[in-house]
Amino acid sequence: MSSSINSVSIIPVIGIPEIQPGDNLVSVVIEATRKNNISIISGDIIVFAQKIVSKSEGRIVKLSDVSPSSFAISLGKTLHKDPRIMEVILGETKRIVKMDREESCKGRFIVETHIGVICANAGIDASNVSGGDTITLLPVDPDTSARKLVEGFKKELGVEVAVVITDTVGRPWRQGLTEIAIGCWGMKPLKDYKGKKDSKGYELRATVLAIADEIAGAAGLVMGKTDSIPVAIVRGYRYEPGGKGARELIRNPEEDLFR
Amino acid sequence: MSSSINSVSIIPVIGIPEIQPGDNLVSVVIEATRKNNISIISGDIIVFAQKIVSKSEGRIVKLSDVSPSSFAISLGKTLHKDPRIMEVILGETKRIVKMDREESCKGRFIVETHIGVICANAGIDASNVSGGDTITLLPVDPDTSARKLVEGFKKELGVEVAVVITDTVGRPWRQGLTEIAIGCWGMKPLKDYKGKKDSKGYELRATVLAIADEIAGAAGLVMGKTDSIPVAIVRGYRYEPGGKGARELIRNPEEDLFR
Repeated sequence: MSSSINSVSIIPVIGIPEIQPGDNLVSVVIEATRKNNISIISGDIIVFAQKIVSKSEGRIVKLSDVSPSSFAISLGKTLHKDPRIMEVILGETKRIVKMDREESCKGRFIVETHIGVICANAGIDASNVSGGDTITLLPVDPDTSARKLVEGFKKELGVEVAVVITDTVGRPWRQGLTEIAIGCWGMKPLKDYKGKKDSKGYELRATVLAIADEIAGAAGLVMGKTDSIPVAIVRGYRYEPGGKGARELIRNPEEDLFR
Repeated sequence: MSSSINSVSIIPVIGIPEIQPGDNLVSVVIEATRKNNISIISGDIIVFAQKIVSKSEGRIVKLSDVSPSSFAISLGKTLHKDPRIMEVILGETKRIVKMDREESCKGRFIVETHIGVICANAGIDASNVSGGDTITLLPVDPDTSARKLVEGFKKELGVEVAVVITDTVGRPWRQGLTEIAIGCWGMKPLKDYKGKKDSKGYELRATVLAIADEIAGAAGLVMGKTDSIPVAIVRGYRYEPGGKGARELIRNPEEDLFR
């Protein structure tokens, strides 16, 4: 039978405390799931919101420590942003993809980060960090972050799980933000139907699905913005183990009509 | 408590037969769920793959009936597509957003459809239709299709459900296709956190989530391409009733940096 005829459950992990730099997220998740009588089992996909991974890895910048460059000051004026935040965003930026013109006052600033993710403000989030003087950056290498978490669950519980690290991003053409996978380990992020046959026996043309992004979106349904639920478990989806991480989800620039 | 602390289940509806023009999808789904011992309950979101909605509405074109225009013949040469399919695609197109140049031989043709969805080939799918001489078009008005399905479940079962109609589309910058909502009724497709407070009491900046697209992506996990599972039930997500349909998910052109 096929891999997709089971029901899939999306289970919020409630009771994750405020994360501090150096915290062991594997221990934190194990403790929270035990309190909720959830057993993590092999085959689970454990989904982490980027922010707690970033915090645990110390990817936090104190704004009062930042000296903005003249370019950051100029851009900050154009985009109506704090020049220190602008400076931090530029530090995470490989390429500016698109920005609003001054008169629109929207302040949108879409960039490619050093790992190749295209998103607003290099994924830098000024909300929800203690104090108000600090901002969180994306993890330096979210696939490696995901791999370490996979290894941690294996070591602590003896289970083979996959891990997806999500960020909330906007999209061209469509209203509203969705979750995408910026880090992934233990499962192939893409599912390729090339050569497989449809229900009528016709061979499918190359159809590659971004499974890890759909996992991220599904987890987003229980990881509300106001609920302090930064972890969810997706259970029952029979993923293909392996893969090279969420970097596979970044379209080859030569094949991208919209770079 | 918040709306998002429950587990969410994604239940595939197995055993949907091949759909013919005029088929009543509500009856078909009720019959299949009964055979699977699933009761549809108020609050469920019933997700339909576009193709069976299109088939039930007779949105099928016989290629042998199509006379391509000279522009369709020319474009077909450029994009390496059957000029009759090209003709049908152009009939569904309001605006050509981007197309490959001849030398790339990729044949990609990204358009805005009459209802404002931006996707390749106006969402026309030449696979998986009986015979091989026929192709399916997107529903003319998927929000109205969704509304009629919502009303049908109310009439037949007395339940208040939401309906999402999905299509599989590519995206700029990211590898792999994902499901999006092209039709939606009974639930608000967007969730606006404006004015709400995060877990630390800070007011969130305007953060609007594309819930219906995340529902579509979640359902995509059980609606495989090869499995004849064109319907799934998303259960346990407490959506907000109302809304104006999936048309709310189409970004206002004046606010789109990437039109």
